[in-house]
Amino acid sequence: MRIIVVGAAGKAGRAVTQLMGERGHDIITVGRTTGDVQYDISDEAQLARMWQHVGQVDAVVSAAGDVTYAPIDELTSDDFNAAWSQKVLAQINLVRTGLDHVSPRGSFTLISGVPSRDPVISATAAATVNGAVEAFVRAAAIEIAPRRINVVSPSVFTESLDDFGDFFPGFAPVDVADVARGFQKAIEGASTGEVITLP
Amino acid sequence: MRIIVVGAAGKAGRAVTQLMGERGHDIITVGRTTGDVQYDISDEAQLARMWQHVGQVDAVVSAAGDVTYAPIDELTSDDFNAAWSQKVLAQINLVRTGLDHVSPRGSFTLISGVPSRDPVISATAAATVNGAVEAFVRAAAIEIAPRRINVVSPSVFTESLDDFGDFFPGFAPVDVADVARGFQKAIEGASTGEVITLP
Repeated sequence: MRIIVVGAAGKAGRAVTQLMGERGHDIITVGRTTGDVQYDISDEAQLARMWQHVGQVDAVVSAAGDVTYAPIDELTSDDFNAAWSQKVLAQINLVRTGLDHVSPRGSFTLISGVPSRDPVISATAAATVNGAVEAFVRAAAIEIAPRRINVVSPSVFTESLDDFGDFFPGFAPVDVADVARGFQKAIEGASTGEVITLP
Repeated sequence: MRIIVVGAAGKAGRAVTQLMGERGHDIITVGRTTGDVQYDISDEAQLARMWQHVGQVDAVVSAAGDVTYAPIDELTSDDFNAAWSQKVLAQINLVRTGLDHVSPRGSFTLISGVPSRDPVISATAAATVNGAVEAFVRAAAIEIAPRRINVVSPSVFTESLDDFGDFFPGFAPVDVADVARGFQKAIEGASTGEVITLP
């Protein structure tokens, strides 16, 4: 399969790129400042140029999207708007503009995160945008068939516990290698509209 | 109780205003161009003036937020951004800015809708933003306690079947009077972080 990985420089992006490479797939990595091709997919003009450059693929993987963690009374409209633009709209636009670039039974696999289903303090922005991505995926699945779309929703990464562990007391973390297998399930499997929760 | 109802001119807003009035509560209706006080809550400056005008309340009700229904390949970034601003950010800002205006055990009750859990064709924008509102409510609940927050998530209104029935084949509709009772459960009850699905 020819697979494009957006957000390939992050922990999850690197892990899925490595696993899919080991599986023998042809990978094109995309990042803002690193990767085989460099575009900021939250910029619609750059997104259009990315598709023109990349052409046709069998699978689209997104592991991109940062969100601010802060108490609800410290978060601003700008924080929520940035989370929306980076984590939701950028992924939605990747799907919308990629519909004609994915093979007939190809797939999109997006990323969300645990706070939408199991919230923690300071994660209202993260919960909001992850809930949006998951609901988008369920809804888009019934419209884009036979193309497929799923979303990987990981807990805090084992590899990120030093930075984020305090936000997730008692949560089972997930190794990024297992997150990569979640993407593999979505890419090589047959499900659609699925929220793949990890661990 | 002193209750502020935002989006009071819509079908659900009118129904909850009527029921809460019959229950003996003191209601302040808010609308863009109608109501006891007139403000557009999607404008942050107007929202601040609204709170200055209204002062302290025991319950905040939101029944506002329009979303475009269209096939995924016809929806634009602007459609998704408008849905985000009107249905998600406006409701989040109502909560954020209202935290100091609600009594210690007071409540917020927002509105979402069925497509986030049971999607239909042409409802990807609706599903996305309703999923966002529901995840926000679950997350905010654990931060704003003992203040409460819930969301009413109705199916298509019986009273809207002429306009929207074709989008929801075979879906059980819900009478707006029952939607109002959903708001009553949230306002007069004790739950928090609940998605009140109707019917």
